[in-house]
Amino acid sequence: MFMSCRASDPYYMLIHARIQNIPNPSNFTLLTFIRILLILCHSLPQKINKVFYAVRGPLVIRATEIEKEILSGVQKPFPDVIKANIGDAHAMGNAPIKFLRQVLALVTYPELLDSPDFPEDAKKRARDIRAGCKNGSVGSYSDSAGIEIIRRHVVDYIEKRDGGIKSDWTNVILCAGASEGIRAIMKLLTNPFGETTRPGVMIPIPQYPLYSASLAEYNMTQIGYYLNEAKNWTLDVSELERSITDARKKCNPRAIVIINPGNPTGQVLARQTIEDVIKFAYKEKLFIFADEVYQDNVYAEGSAFHSFKKVLFEMGDPYDKMELASFMSCSKGYMGECGIRGGYTEIVNFDPQVKAMLLKSVSAKLCPTAIGQACMDVVVNPPVPGEPSYEEFEAQKKQILEGLAEKAKLVADTFNSIEGFSCNIVQGAMYAFPQLHLPPKAIAKAEELGQKADVFYAFQLLENTGICIIPGSGFGQVPDTYHFRTTILPQKKFFD
Amino acid sequence: MFMSCRASDPYYMLIHARIQNIPNPSNFTLLTFIRILLILCHSLPQKINKVFYAVRGPLVIRATEIEKEILSGVQKPFPDVIKANIGDAHAMGNAPIKFLRQVLALVTYPELLDSPDFPEDAKKRARDIRAGCKNGSVGSYSDSAGIEIIRRHVVDYIEKRDGGIKSDWTNVILCAGASEGIRAIMKLLTNPFGETTRPGVMIPIPQYPLYSASLAEYNMTQIGYYLNEAKNWTLDVSELERSITDARKKCNPRAIVIINPGNPTGQVLARQTIEDVIKFAYKEKLFIFADEVYQDNVYAEGSAFHSFKKVLFEMGDPYDKMELASFMSCSKGYMGECGIRGGYTEIVNFDPQVKAMLLKSVSAKLCPTAIGQACMDVVVNPPVPGEPSYEEFEAQKKQILEGLAEKAKLVADTFNSIEGFSCNIVQGAMYAFPQLHLPPKAIAKAEELGQKADVFYAFQLLENTGICIIPGSGFGQVPDTYHFRTTILPQKKFFD
Repeated sequence: MFMSCRASDPYYMLIHARIQNIPNPSNFTLLTFIRILLILCHSLPQKINKVFYAVRGPLVIRATEIEKEILSGVQKPFPDVIKANIGDAHAMGNAPIKFLRQVLALVTYPELLDSPDFPEDAKKRARDIRAGCKNGSVGSYSDSAGIEIIRRHVVDYIEKRDGGIKSDWTNVILCAGASEGIRAIMKLLTNPFGETTRPGVMIPIPQYPLYSASLAEYNMTQIGYYLNEAKNWTLDVSELERSITDARKKCNPRAIVIINPGNPTGQVLARQTIEDVIKFAYKEKLFIFADEVYQDNVYAEGSAFHSFKKVLFEMGDPYDKMELASFMSCSKGYMGECGIRGGYTEIVNFDPQVKAMLLKSVSAKLCPTAIGQACMDVVVNPPVPGEPSYEEFEAQKKQILEGLAEKAKLVADTFNSIEGFSCNIVQGAMYAFPQLHLPPKAIAKAEELGQKADVFYAFQLLENTGICIIPGSGFGQVPDTYHFRTTILPQKKFFD
Repeated sequence: MFMSCRASDPYYMLIHARIQNIPNPSNFTLLTFIRILLILCHSLPQKINKVFYAVRGPLVIRATEIEKEILSGVQKPFPDVIKANIGDAHAMGNAPIKFLRQVLALVTYPELLDSPDFPEDAKKRARDIRAGCKNGSVGSYSDSAGIEIIRRHVVDYIEKRDGGIKSDWTNVILCAGASEGIRAIMKLLTNPFGETTRPGVMIPIPQYPLYSASLAEYNMTQIGYYLNEAKNWTLDVSELERSITDARKKCNPRAIVIINPGNPTGQVLARQTIEDVIKFAYKEKLFIFADEVYQDNVYAEGSAFHSFKKVLFEMGDPYDKMELASFMSCSKGYMGECGIRGGYTEIVNFDPQVKAMLLKSVSAKLCPTAIGQACMDVVVNPPVPGEPSYEEFEAQKKQILEGLAEKAKLVADTFNSIEGFSCNIVQGAMYAFPQLHLPPKAIAKAEELGQKADVFYAFQLLENTGICIIPGSGFGQVPDTYHFRTTILPQKKFFD
């Protein structure tokens, strides 16, 4: 069954080799399946089916345990664990962007501003950021919404990205990664203006579990709309209509979340689709969450990133009055600075009272990390032609993005070459979300044993091959289909 | 009235001089008072009486506006704004600890590990921290509870601080400043085990507004217990009894918050008082929040910091089985690294299921900033005798703490020397909370005009002298008393 793999590539040979270690999901007998399930039932935590925040859930905990077992000398059928569970580029061997880290070192330890080893453009960035910090120290609290000069640089970046459409620095709120920004905006919907009907938020299925977890925490209704797997995970307005019609019976739909490029599904929305979503949201009076943290991660030919804000303004009246929030992060793109915790929210067309409420609410967090803010500054204010770091910065960025594009294609092609898997084109973001075709009897038996079949498969894969992926049920999927999410981040060189 | 001030000290001369610019609060006539109120009513935002998160509230917004006005050339009766509203040491001119910043620069830009300009002990810290980061990068996500080696260093610190009482690294959860840790633990109390009675939490009055804001957000009942101003803001068990008896009529008291050393009140609890509180909490089955972020900030002779955990364990059975959480931060102490966002929570005697729930809940935040974690590492793992940075580190720490001790005394003495003010000894933390004695008629008239008299006073002080303090009503105070909080942080040299 593995004959059709691309034997030329060592990384994908390794994936193939490791997958061979588990029973063939389409062919193995029910008896084998039950036997393995029974073994697993004795060795795994009892509650693994309750996946709350899948990308950080029990699979990842088990993966870390296995890593420790290997270190302590336990023999495994694989040399190490491949953590393809989370979009963490540095953990998978991507090097940090040198210029970015130079600026962060300079603002942290300003004595380095006298060092000849740091280029002048990095020093200039550091001086500007320090000028925005009280008494020049990143150890001072900033304003809760962030350092003004950085918020202004974000505006310049957005205006350039969106072909000159105006932005306002007081509408940019810096945050410790996009998650914090998303949660802050979500919280605004919890009980606005004294409404008594339970508010609902439309989210894609599959979705990023931050959304389901936050909605549960804030006691709001999750309204799932299915992405169309047969059409490369695009969005159909007819499905949005179905979803909201069903939802209106039980809650008050107030917002729609769009993740573009898609997580976990890797699609990049066409401009026309974005227009359709905006028209739908207008008709239904929905607030738009534009989760655009992968805006730099577009790989497929013919795909391009269009911000919701840009399309909304280009559509003109009445759409250009709609309320929207767009989220960006330092954790993704080419920089992959997850641990630094930088991000921003841009709010658009907010009622001044709601904006004031938001600013009040973020003030309880005191301020986002100043180093994370500085990181966001470099992302939106990179070296320009003529500056000493420009060439090297661009080369590093290009190399990382081209590597991701190559791997995006390889991963999808590889899965499609294996019997029992099918995978859409990874147009953008950092993930593939292949479908796993399991025999119906095996699925039924797994469920009888209180285990979702995809969760079972994921644990199986981890224990037998060391590959840590996240089962589709952690993200949501059409009933009776089984998927998993894997990142496209592992370095090929690891496996040479 | 200002004759008794310590004319020898330029900083306090300045405070005196600036305070002289506003009408004498105990002597000015009702007519003067009303006239000023009327002037202010035209120039100030309408809703300043709704102070939600006082340390970040409208006074601070106005202070920032005034700073911008001065920069743009508007004439004021003072040269600059003195932001005594928030415990932000670097903003007030305290220099960062050199060794700490060296370590942060090294982990951020590891190329510096080859530089001869960095001492070996800083490099060792950086190497250890990097070894705990995935692929050696602070740009990787850490575990949600933090980097294991740093959690282990925190344990060493706690055990040393508490005279050898054992700590467990899995009970230490790193967080982006103590606020995040406090909120995570508070959230656990919202609806534990399916209880239907509304949970309540006892908090000191005056309190730090993080508590009132979080309780409001989580829909829990705030149960205030008054600190005893006449006994230097200590805690009386009789008042705890009164408070909980009243509260039981309307909610289910589940926890007690103790801030020691006190914010905004600056007291340091005696060991006996801590024992009394623990016995009270045991009797009433209350969870203990030990907010101990000022544990390094103890100045008064005879005062010493005792951690709640240490006292609880030393009291032995049955107290040593009680549930407690203690909070620490990089933002206070001698380091004052507010913008870096580092902190930890130590949980003690948690039920394993509750601990699992907590770890699940923090996982939705992905991870605290890795640089903030690294900062916490240096705080708990400073240079030791024999290491190259030891002398300089200790000297810097000593200078900062001695400076704070000196200012703690000066601030209280100065207020006590001014008619119309009385101020307790500042035994610890970073604040004084003097009482302001306003004439009853003036207070009544201010209230008639919809303004709290202490808020009015604070705006008045800001507009006329440029000193930004926070009115007592932002923290809570005994009805019909008026206070404000001022930090003890301003640098004396600014006013030479």
